[in-house]
Amino acid sequence: MFEQLGLIGCGLMGGSFALALKRAGLVKRVVGYSKSPSTTDRARQMGVIDVEAPSALLAVAGADIVLLAVPVSATEASLKAIKHLVTPQMLIMDVGSTKADVVKAARSALGDKAGPFVPAHPITGREVAGVEHADADLYVGRQVILTPIERTLTAQIRQAEEVWKALGCRVTSMSPESHDEAFAAVSHLPHLLAFAFINGLAGQPQSDTFFSLAGPGFRDFSRIAGGDPKIWRDIFLSNRNEVLAQSELFRQALLQLEQLIRSGNTQGLEDLITLASETRTHWRMGGQRSKGH
Amino acid sequence: MFEQLGLIGCGLMGGSFALALKRAGLVKRVVGYSKSPSTTDRARQMGVIDVEAPSALLAVAGADIVLLAVPVSATEASLKAIKHLVTPQMLIMDVGSTKADVVKAARSALGDKAGPFVPAHPITGREVAGVEHADADLYVGRQVILTPIERTLTAQIRQAEEVWKALGCRVTSMSPESHDEAFAAVSHLPHLLAFAFINGLAGQPQSDTFFSLAGPGFRDFSRIAGGDPKIWRDIFLSNRNEVLAQSELFRQALLQLEQLIRSGNTQGLEDLITLASETRTHWRMGGQRSKGH
Repeated sequence: MFEQLGLIGCGLMGGSFALALKRAGLVKRVVGYSKSPSTTDRARQMGVIDVEAPSALLAVAGADIVLLAVPVSATEASLKAIKHLVTPQMLIMDVGSTKADVVKAARSALGDKAGPFVPAHPITGREVAGVEHADADLYVGRQVILTPIERTLTAQIRQAEEVWKALGCRVTSMSPESHDEAFAAVSHLPHLLAFAFINGLAGQPQSDTFFSLAGPGFRDFSRIAGGDPKIWRDIFLSNRNEVLAQSELFRQALLQLEQLIRSGNTQGLEDLITLASETRTHWRMGGQRSKGH
Repeated sequence: MFEQLGLIGCGLMGGSFALALKRAGLVKRVVGYSKSPSTTDRARQMGVIDVEAPSALLAVAGADIVLLAVPVSATEASLKAIKHLVTPQMLIMDVGSTKADVVKAARSALGDKAGPFVPAHPITGREVAGVEHADADLYVGRQVILTPIERTLTAQIRQAEEVWKALGCRVTSMSPESHDEAFAAVSHLPHLLAFAFINGLAGQPQSDTFFSLAGPGFRDFSRIAGGDPKIWRDIFLSNRNEVLAQSELFRQALLQLEQLIRSGNTQGLEDLITLASETRTHWRMGGQRSKGH
């Protein structure tokens, strides 16, 4: 049980965390700060936060748990802003989708005060942003990856695990580098492809006709193209090496299929589609692929 | 009201059409043929068809409505097989996802008997194949594109429109060529990308870890990668020029995003993601994009 959550960034992710923590009875009071005063104001009116703080530093004053829910590019500045009130007793977490850059920012901003900071990535989200979509259920049933570094305090890692589990999450740990490599592959790349796909269509003169004929396959495939531009811009830039490496591997796989189509290689094409189809069919969210193929 | 449906191909699409037609009270009897006798047998046991025919030709004997629900590559052979029992009074349709090749097959197989054939593409499907997934609701609320040619009889076009409307579909007409161009863009391309995406991941040594971390974005984006290999092999090959042209445009859009990431062009990257995000957000299935952006 915490006395006070200091929430820095009162958007979808931060607001949902505050609502979930309150509903679970894990916090008495939420003090919130957002860059835009109108966001903080709305968060208070909605009951997402109890008190508006005029700065990130003041949101942390008196807090025993702090959540940084800002675009990853704002991590370093936010940590610098709160550094003077960071104590070895508090639990500080973020919710960023990339972790190597977050760890780097924490090292740079907090230095030897980085012990209470546990980098966290809850795998959830919506194709809508803003506190008005905050939802106490956003984290329920989701996976949360913790990426502690050598300086991270064990007590805070345990606390972080307990908090997320109390919100209904499954918690696993990995290194920031392994995290970023894996999420470049299963999350950042498909977002990049979905954005490129929509832009490729939108640039054609017949795009209105195209879009009017699109069906349920298009709908599901392109859903993630509705993601928040600033968030995704930051993710691509902060994880650029891994994202570009995955995009290169993807293009090789695409060119291989194109070549089989161009040459009319019926069996080769069927074999590669079968590989994809069976792999996808046997995939279960959050589990392993079944063995044997 | 029809007396007898001759169903050639008793899989998901054909079986669902038979069930829907029966439920709507539009047909008295269904005679079915499948290449595999076990499929036909199962279709009869399930009540999808009433009588098993030993050949495509015999499935058409006595039919006043015929549905060809076979892979598009089998269209010409199927039409040749039934040609001798085709009459100017019957309504013959297919459900193929590509239309220029189907029209070519009809011209070649039926010649001056092509009048009663109305090429049709109902925009629906499942990521599972086979008569065991046949569903009377598969076509409800879906769009159906008719692509009649110069020889197609007006009476049959009207009948085709009425049948699909009675099953709960919206019906539109366009040329086979416009159809294939549009569906290369909004359906065939995303399937190709989804197959390439899964294969790109599956080929990496850490793929088991990757798949275990995949979340809801991955799930929706890759759903269509579970499609039937033979169906999609045929679609890509029969519409190869349009598919390859769309894939080329896509790769240009992808390389443009990659270049902005590589050079760290924050604003340019945000602008292109914003274009994609707004376009996708304003898209509504089966409707036009909203104006003003």
